[in-house]
Amino acid sequence: MHSIYQYQEFISDYLQSQYTIKEPKNLYEPIHYILRLGGKRMRPVLTLMSAEVFDTDYKLALPAALAVEVFHNFSLVHDDIMDAAPLRRGNQTVHEKWNTNTAILSGDAMLILAYQYFEQYEPSVFRDLAKLFGKTALEVCEGQQWDVDFETRKDVTIPEYLKMIEYKTAVLVAAAMKMGAIVAQTSCENANLIYDFGLNLGLAFQLQDDYLDAFGDPETFGKQVGGDIIENKKTYLYLKAIEYATPDQKEKILHLLSNHFEDNTLKINEVKSLFDSTGASKATQQAIQEYTLKAFETLSKISIDNEKKDKLRSFGENLMQRKV
Amino acid sequence: MHSIYQYQEFISDYLQSQYTIKEPKNLYEPIHYILRLGGKRMRPVLTLMSAEVFDTDYKLALPAALAVEVFHNFSLVHDDIMDAAPLRRGNQTVHEKWNTNTAILSGDAMLILAYQYFEQYEPSVFRDLAKLFGKTALEVCEGQQWDVDFETRKDVTIPEYLKMIEYKTAVLVAAAMKMGAIVAQTSCENANLIYDFGLNLGLAFQLQDDYLDAFGDPETFGKQVGGDIIENKKTYLYLKAIEYATPDQKEKILHLLSNHFEDNTLKINEVKSLFDSTGASKATQQAIQEYTLKAFETLSKISIDNEKKDKLRSFGENLMQRKV
Repeated sequence: MHSIYQYQEFISDYLQSQYTIKEPKNLYEPIHYILRLGGKRMRPVLTLMSAEVFDTDYKLALPAALAVEVFHNFSLVHDDIMDAAPLRRGNQTVHEKWNTNTAILSGDAMLILAYQYFEQYEPSVFRDLAKLFGKTALEVCEGQQWDVDFETRKDVTIPEYLKMIEYKTAVLVAAAMKMGAIVAQTSCENANLIYDFGLNLGLAFQLQDDYLDAFGDPETFGKQVGGDIIENKKTYLYLKAIEYATPDQKEKILHLLSNHFEDNTLKINEVKSLFDSTGASKATQQAIQEYTLKAFETLSKISIDNEKKDKLRSFGENLMQRKV
Repeated sequence: MHSIYQYQEFISDYLQSQYTIKEPKNLYEPIHYILRLGGKRMRPVLTLMSAEVFDTDYKLALPAALAVEVFHNFSLVHDDIMDAAPLRRGNQTVHEKWNTNTAILSGDAMLILAYQYFEQYEPSVFRDLAKLFGKTALEVCEGQQWDVDFETRKDVTIPEYLKMIEYKTAVLVAAAMKMGAIVAQTSCENANLIYDFGLNLGLAFQLQDDYLDAFGDPETFGKQVGGDIIENKKTYLYLKAIEYATPDQKEKILHLLSNHFEDNTLKINEVKSLFDSTGASKATQQAIQEYTLKAFETLSKISIDNEKKDKLRSFGENLMQRKV
């Protein structure tokens, strides 16, 4: 097996080999632009790693890995329109650099291009990959819709929130890993176990994202610390704080997180202190821990060498120890 | 074989059987809405008809037919955002009835749902259908991008225009027919011939749409007659008029079709008279005739009974004699 860094290189090289500028330029240039912005390429790395875990050369999994990466970037392009986000990975978003129509159409083309990567596989592998991809892609759309719906709802429950992040984030991590298993043509049981491993890891990852957004180190956290608090986002921290709060604390939280203030630093500090005093911070850390452990339990059931389990476990541990 | 009306009924019934309201409602309701607005269902009718032409029960082709219809409606939802169109088939467009974000996301889900219909076929048929679908869907995106690009270009050539309408409109008609052939598992030659039949018929259909937009009977033409002229669209009529015009006529056309006027009736009449006097009207009618004949020539090469060829020919003739 290879290192994360090596997998990232393989993906970057394969991506470069696939993309030449085609006509019409106004359709394809935004696609190259967003794909070249990079990011950690976590999802396609997992596809390659999963293929090798099941004793198959990572090269065979490159098209499936790129399908996942192109799909993920499609969803970013369309989500950024919906969120009116000006920046993505420190650069202009596609709809800002070009315009909304271009971002819609180039995004559509990316969704189709993602599917096309599966055409390189034999019919039965192709169908398994495309079926998993279709199911996952639809769930990601549903997750995004729940996320939009939650913005204007005041009665979101914890199970609903968990379902939303499962669909919006975790299923793609899970599917990325299962695709490696499908390419490797391992047993159905193994493929489903690695899916569950990815799903729980994805949930832990997203909950940690919520946590770090408030409590991350501003020196190392990629995004603005406190961004969710400034934008009054209903994160896991928020929902747990409301659940555990005394009437007095609840009133304070609702006041702070349904208005906009001039002094964001003050707002952030007050909210963080309420997250701590209500027990929401601790509950969130516990949930992250639980999902991570669940992932590792699933891992122990997969029929692969212990050495390979260690590889996956250390990837998971790395991911969960991140400060960024 | 069945009548067009019967095929339309089969599609409508199958559509109803497939769509129950699912959660999240804000994602699925717009999809039901646009699919229920109807239209002539020309593309899925062609898929069913093509399956029966190649001796296969239309029922087997229903999922493929619906994939084509759902894809077509996906492209309408996203195109309507890009064109800021308020109405579709006499009703509010999705982005008007809901909002742009909903139209983007529900459209994305439709593109995925379209792919999922192919999952009902065995692996090799599934792959053939999905490959053709992916290629076609990407061409439709490219055609839409050319169309957008042409709005701000002054040097569009006739071959470029024909390529644009081929991609934006004709390839989907062609693919709809070839899908029927793939489901029927007829020979590769037959499948390619029926594709060419559809492609030429699709081109004739789109050119006729350009023609009827100016010269159609207001009593029977579905859309506003002269709409393209009011919006200064660079149609085939316009490009031919510019090609054939004397310097004086060219100046008049450019003046009329690059400005907006208070009196649209006057503008429409003057432009139509220039389309006639330059010979553009006649050239457009000839082009429609040529593509229709090309379609019929292709038809004669397909190895099927003459009775079935007559069916397809009469469908084509009907389509080309339409006044709406």
